[in-house]
Amino acid sequence: MSTLDEFALIRLLTEGKQSPAFERTHGISTGIGDDAAVANVTAGYQLVMTCDTMAETVHFKNITMRSSDIGYKAMAAAVSDIAAMGARPRYALVALSFPAGTPAERLAQIYEGLYECAHKYDVVVAGGDTTASASGITITVAVIGEVEAGKALLRSTAGPGDVLVATGWLGCSAAGLDYLLSRAEAAESWPQQWHAYESLVRAHCRPEPQVEAGLLLQQSGACTALNDVSDGLASEAWEIAEASGVGIDLIEERIPVAHELLTYAQKADKSPLDYILFGGEDYQLVGTMRAEHAIAMQMKFKEAGLRLYIIGYVHEQAQGVRLVQIDGNVVPIEKKGYHHF
Amino acid sequence: MSTLDEFALIRLLTEGKQSPAFERTHGISTGIGDDAAVANVTAGYQLVMTCDTMAETVHFKNITMRSSDIGYKAMAAAVSDIAAMGARPRYALVALSFPAGTPAERLAQIYEGLYECAHKYDVVVAGGDTTASASGITITVAVIGEVEAGKALLRSTAGPGDVLVATGWLGCSAAGLDYLLSRAEAAESWPQQWHAYESLVRAHCRPEPQVEAGLLLQQSGACTALNDVSDGLASEAWEIAEASGVGIDLIEERIPVAHELLTYAQKADKSPLDYILFGGEDYQLVGTMRAEHAIAMQMKFKEAGLRLYIIGYVHEQAQGVRLVQIDGNVVPIEKKGYHHF
Repeated sequence: MSTLDEFALIRLLTEGKQSPAFERTHGISTGIGDDAAVANVTAGYQLVMTCDTMAETVHFKNITMRSSDIGYKAMAAAVSDIAAMGARPRYALVALSFPAGTPAERLAQIYEGLYECAHKYDVVVAGGDTTASASGITITVAVIGEVEAGKALLRSTAGPGDVLVATGWLGCSAAGLDYLLSRAEAAESWPQQWHAYESLVRAHCRPEPQVEAGLLLQQSGACTALNDVSDGLASEAWEIAEASGVGIDLIEERIPVAHELLTYAQKADKSPLDYILFGGEDYQLVGTMRAEHAIAMQMKFKEAGLRLYIIGYVHEQAQGVRLVQIDGNVVPIEKKGYHHF
Repeated sequence: MSTLDEFALIRLLTEGKQSPAFERTHGISTGIGDDAAVANVTAGYQLVMTCDTMAETVHFKNITMRSSDIGYKAMAAAVSDIAAMGARPRYALVALSFPAGTPAERLAQIYEGLYECAHKYDVVVAGGDTTASASGITITVAVIGEVEAGKALLRSTAGPGDVLVATGWLGCSAAGLDYLLSRAEAAESWPQQWHAYESLVRAHCRPEPQVEAGLLLQQSGACTALNDVSDGLASEAWEIAEASGVGIDLIEERIPVAHELLTYAQKADKSPLDYILFGGEDYQLVGTMRAEHAIAMQMKFKEAGLRLYIIGYVHEQAQGVRLVQIDGNVVPIEKKGYHHF
């Protein structure tokens, strides 16, 4: 950045993206431009805080994501952690590092995607930091949300007799990534609309954190534990099982499979179930609730235009996570997930 | 990271560093280990939020900082932004990215420094993210603090007739950096105690954010504007001047110069004033207050074991920032600072 100083860059990236009126009605007293942001918390609520990092070549390459997708997804991943607590995201801080010589246009596009996601989920970008890096773009988004005191949904509170639920299709993001890697086409040359696997590419590049579903689960009082699917269903089910000291059986025939996932997996000679269990970054929610509440919750979700699938059961015995296959066989599921290491 | 999965790494870095009792008494309901942390805010207080990034080769190299210094300083820099609002830091989120093959010992040392600083300033490390990077270590620390509603100290509220104050020596960090670069000795070979320029090295590697001073200024009601010195006195004075629509005169003979800064500058044939004006990362506070309060505040600071120097005056005319030299000449000061670009 030889031609643009830090303040000019911050103006380029953030100016005009959020109106003072928007900030004011969303609880901000002091936004971007001072040493730190100042904001309100609703009386009787607790803070819910998380951060998520995406690094070039590790989490994205120029054949797997457009610049705007990088910003969108970094925000979405952090928002999803807040959703997984049954909380409402409110404020975000954004730390962006980039090598000297990165075109300002690329940085501006990253921020456009970032703000697009922030607006969708009613989040105020309240501050951040822009710095140089030796190589590669790294973006960290911290999101601060709030939840009625004592009402956050943990992963350690599932109990025997609960059912396991999921808020949408799983495995699509990992399949989308495989598809993009197999095409190996620079993002600048991507078509506006994909003829094939549009939903898989979208799941990978523009995931939809399930804030509304998380709030519905939290406010219902029926949900006993909740996680978001960042590392695949197997890993998330294991996390709930271990944290809660229970066993979880996934029922294969109950797990929904997206049509395009099925089609792509057949063509690529892969198993859709592998994507679902061990793929990552779907940012759907997986949780548990007392069985007697499940049908009523499904109705509530339907009324709200959301989906809720019952995909498994929680057992008293700590037998880990198992899969009840369509033929009735029960097989243990490995505690592996999609880790970026 | 082939031998350690993410959860094992998080345990290595964080386990045993903060007791459950410490977390509980510091407002944490759910700490590290769930999707997000859950914590309390004091009733009637507002959030104060910031984040700060340090990237390898840009902000630190192996000849300028030990691993533990990296963690310490990343936390200190973010805490300093909270101090600059007259607020109390409470919670931190830490995002660490590192290349495959980084020794776990190095990561552990970074976290040791991080926790050392957190404990010093009574901050709970409430969560974070660890990811791989293509090259180089990047660390982002977000700090969430709180301040009595409506009492945050901004930089846009200085007025004519105010004096400019500083909470300590400036320029030492930049001089320390120059000294370390001139020695070019790998941090692992550094002496336990430096024979020369100990205070300069310390100012660079282990800065002391002025939380107590910031709170004292905020609670006094006398302070009209406040900044922390991350980019040098010139840059910070310019920020206050521009944001507040005032002019600021720095009085050269009033600006305190640390003894070791003077010695080092003489030896290196540099100007101490250059370090003070255009060096960075001192993390002292620079602020303004009504002249009639200044002496009483100095007494209060003295009682608290803190320092407060009156180093300039605020004018109505928007003539920018000027230096009143010891010989009485008045010269304009450039709006440049220590930017990492």
